[in-house]
Amino acid sequence: MVVGVVGLGLIGGSLAISLKKRGFASKIIGVDNNPNHSSEALDSNIVDEVCGLSQVAQLADIIILAIPVDAGKAVLPLLLDQTKEGQVIIDMGSTKGGICMVADQHPNRKNFVASHPIAGTENAGPSAAFDGLYDNKITIICDEEKSLPSAVNVCKKLYETLNMRVQFMDSQEHDRHIAYVSHLSHITSFVLGQTVLEIEKDEKSIFNMAGSGFASTVRLAKSSPDMWAPIFEQNQEHLSTALEAYIKNLENFKRKIETGSKDELRDLMGDVNEIRRVLKGI
Amino acid sequence: MVVGVVGLGLIGGSLAISLKKRGFASKIIGVDNNPNHSSEALDSNIVDEVCGLSQVAQLADIIILAIPVDAGKAVLPLLLDQTKEGQVIIDMGSTKGGICMVADQHPNRKNFVASHPIAGTENAGPSAAFDGLYDNKITIICDEEKSLPSAVNVCKKLYETLNMRVQFMDSQEHDRHIAYVSHLSHITSFVLGQTVLEIEKDEKSIFNMAGSGFASTVRLAKSSPDMWAPIFEQNQEHLSTALEAYIKNLENFKRKIETGSKDELRDLMGDVNEIRRVLKGI
Repeated sequence: MVVGVVGLGLIGGSLAISLKKRGFASKIIGVDNNPNHSSEALDSNIVDEVCGLSQVAQLADIIILAIPVDAGKAVLPLLLDQTKEGQVIIDMGSTKGGICMVADQHPNRKNFVASHPIAGTENAGPSAAFDGLYDNKITIICDEEKSLPSAVNVCKKLYETLNMRVQFMDSQEHDRHIAYVSHLSHITSFVLGQTVLEIEKDEKSIFNMAGSGFASTVRLAKSSPDMWAPIFEQNQEHLSTALEAYIKNLENFKRKIETGSKDELRDLMGDVNEIRRVLKGI
Repeated sequence: MVVGVVGLGLIGGSLAISLKKRGFASKIIGVDNNPNHSSEALDSNIVDEVCGLSQVAQLADIIILAIPVDAGKAVLPLLLDQTKEGQVIIDMGSTKGGICMVADQHPNRKNFVASHPIAGTENAGPSAAFDGLYDNKITIICDEEKSLPSAVNVCKKLYETLNMRVQFMDSQEHDRHIAYVSHLSHITSFVLGQTVLEIEKDEKSIFNMAGSGFASTVRLAKSSPDMWAPIFEQNQEHLSTALEAYIKNLENFKRKIETGSKDELRDLMGDVNEIRRVLKGI
């Protein structure tokens, strides 16, 4: 099977490496609008060939979009315009409502499968790609009833090759949940990094006094702005609600600190410790 | 050297294990007001003996307080009342202003050394203790000019045995900086956990969709409420300021999302990516 991968960063690059290594793809054709990424991916054998976006629909059996979510929405109709029978187009973006709405307006909607493999690191670009990124993680396929069953099957097989567990979900539901368990934590981390950098002008102090706890909490603040700015834009509505709830809870916590309500803080944190049980296995 | 360790949780237990194993302590005498912790520490050879708080000053050359910061403030004067020449009392709490003020009012202030080893995990109790917790981390000694030089030397040697780098700092400065690089990240993590648990009543959804990024950001929400509630109380003033700045930045981030200011978000996150360079080495 010839697989076209549009976007050769951490997500697309890791996918290409694993699909080739595990025999799912006989050939990987890469597309990236950054010529440095293209030549880096070729040099390190992440892809077998590169081509332009307008050629990939002619050359590949499966095309996978691993680009920022706003670019995905712009590129998908161009690919669906050219798609041929039996070809499957899959996107891997972190928001699903927007791209599904774009897809729904296209006559070739059934060739498209909307998916979101929940995997990543704080690093970006082809040099960050590695085999194993997806192993034992969850992937979500959205609105599968709007895709051809054969296309959904190809997508499932692809993710099973990556050792992922496949779940099905409505695209709107996906965006609502993911706002809380992924997007919100990226924002809390970015804003924590911002706040500490603003106050601690003398970086030495941060470096000296920050421990592994701070490093863990602020890790996601190293993530790619090019990837995350469009995600936040696309999931605006749910993120606005999530941030409102988060800020309200922070203000409550702050008030309890200011009024010396130590016992109430202890009880509240005791309840939140429940997260330990919920997170077991992640 | 006979070392008395008051508090046999993660911090005191790990300290006891390492000081014994590395030959700094000939004998470890443990004190804990939780009888289960005492017997657990005895059974697993974390301590050689246990005794009551009123006995430890008679039996030990060095006494180390590894208990919640409010308890530390209450216990320190009782120990200083009984202290004998050459004995050193060290505390390891995460706030330093409060305990130093208490110490400053005591005639035996010079036998006390205020310190804060910046190390820990999200786990608590003697069963969480392990040799190596402190290796290659930073420890801070505060207001060292108020302690006997010989007492400071004993404290330095103790931390050097643990392979820690020793820094000196004013206790007020310590509390101001640590509010940002440690305490604030515990609060952002606890409140993130709270917010997600409140919304995602169906835990299955969290479990299914949360990735390693969320797990990392929310890790500190597993921390001990008994340890952290008093820290937040003690560092109230600096935390109020830190939280105000954090909430203001969050509201700004939220507004940029709501107004579709994608380019501004991208620029802001690009600036925050600077944290990658600052954190190198943690």
